[in-house]
Amino acid sequence: MSGGAANFKKCGSVLVTGANRGLGLELVKRLASGGFSPGKIIATTRNAAKAEKLQELAEKHPNIHIVTLDVVNQDSIEKCAADVAQLVQEEGLNCLINNAGINVVADFHSVTAEKMIENFHTNSVAPLMITKAFLPLLKQAASRGAAAGSKTMGIQRAAVINMSSLLGSVELNWGERANSFRWYPYRTSKTALNMVSRCMAIDLEPDGILCMVIHPGWVRTDMGGPEAPLSPEESISAVLSVIGGLTEKDHGSFLNFTGEQLPW
Amino acid sequence: MSGGAANFKKCGSVLVTGANRGLGLELVKRLASGGFSPGKIIATTRNAAKAEKLQELAEKHPNIHIVTLDVVNQDSIEKCAADVAQLVQEEGLNCLINNAGINVVADFHSVTAEKMIENFHTNSVAPLMITKAFLPLLKQAASRGAAAGSKTMGIQRAAVINMSSLLGSVELNWGERANSFRWYPYRTSKTALNMVSRCMAIDLEPDGILCMVIHPGWVRTDMGGPEAPLSPEESISAVLSVIGGLTEKDHGSFLNFTGEQLPW
Repeated sequence: MSGGAANFKKCGSVLVTGANRGLGLELVKRLASGGFSPGKIIATTRNAAKAEKLQELAEKHPNIHIVTLDVVNQDSIEKCAADVAQLVQEEGLNCLINNAGINVVADFHSVTAEKMIENFHTNSVAPLMITKAFLPLLKQAASRGAAAGSKTMGIQRAAVINMSSLLGSVELNWGERANSFRWYPYRTSKTALNMVSRCMAIDLEPDGILCMVIHPGWVRTDMGGPEAPLSPEESISAVLSVIGGLTEKDHGSFLNFTGEQLPW
Repeated sequence: MSGGAANFKKCGSVLVTGANRGLGLELVKRLASGGFSPGKIIATTRNAAKAEKLQELAEKHPNIHIVTLDVVNQDSIEKCAADVAQLVQEEGLNCLINNAGINVVADFHSVTAEKMIENFHTNSVAPLMITKAFLPLLKQAASRGAAAGSKTMGIQRAAVINMSSLLGSVELNWGERANSFRWYPYRTSKTALNMVSRCMAIDLEPDGILCMVIHPGWVRTDMGGPEAPLSPEESISAVLSVIGGLTEKDHGSFLNFTGEQLPW
């Protein structure tokens, strides 16, 4: 068992947003099975009644709890945080994975202000507003971890993981790499998420809460399309291994699913 | 005379957004006087009737043309582009300086989705929508420059200059530097503008239009406050010198007002 998997075993609770399909669903699946198995897996989705695959998974694994969350609705965020507080009680929340995201495809000619703002709200602003709402639960988990003797940062205490993308790297958006995926709303939203995460890393550090962004690779999901080189299983196994092994040195970083650092 | 100033002399027209105060007003002032003097200086402002200092300046310098532009209103952007087309005629627009910007101050605790979106719309989305609207005029200037024998990119052909900020650098937002200015909406909007600019650099390159972002320094304006080390004159003299000297090698770059490259 890798160090990463061992850490998830020590992790009381993980929350995954956008868990009804794609990488979010795969995260829940991998967390529930195999070496990765935290005490509680909280899977949020906008419409629980329509999340059939997630429902099936939850029937098999009683540690999966489905909670409704519309990430762009502040009332929904606050209701979700209250529901999760009931679930985790005094243990708090160890790991918040802000995975929910959309791709409002538009190039230079088709882009509009509305498309830019829609993608920014879901991909960059929502993770910030969700983290704010869950701060009391994250603090609780971080201080319990510290009291139990855990001196390093990581998911055994508390962590906020934001699912970003290589396409959000300004530096890498040049030359050959820039010729495909000329998506203004998506690229900009992921770059903005990187800055939001870096700002949050600074503000969460005094409470011992780790914060970083990760690129899950280009994956065969509804968003990634059939041409992508990675299967969801391959991507998420690697992502969870990275998340499980995070320590202080990764705080405020932008990592690839392989664990390597990416340029902003 | 520096090479930068000489290039502005060869430059038919420069448009500056947010020209009623601060760095925008200073840009117009410096362009109108001294070594920097393009044929037409187009100064846009949301409310021309209230832009008294700009009106005074325009009375002294007949090459200053004041045009109304509300940067977050698409109808206003299109109306402004039509007005400017009338002004510049077949010469097109050589240099578009997206300077208009706001700082919606909010830290981790006070930030809201609305504040994030407001700052993003003005600082990141508006420069994109404005550049799209002015594309025909920029193309016209770029191809006239090429026809006149100008082989290198730069303001003697056509350029889009976006006023960004050091505070938009994700890399520099760490350690000592991060302790002040924990402004989520502003920082995120400038990071997003950097990505928008990099995307535009790629898309404008085939038409020979240069695109880059510049940090004007920390300046004693309404936004910068009285503690800032630079006067508007010092900042803008340096900024115009950098802009005037831009060539291919600066395309897609993030430069300090001193001309040095900044990390994303």
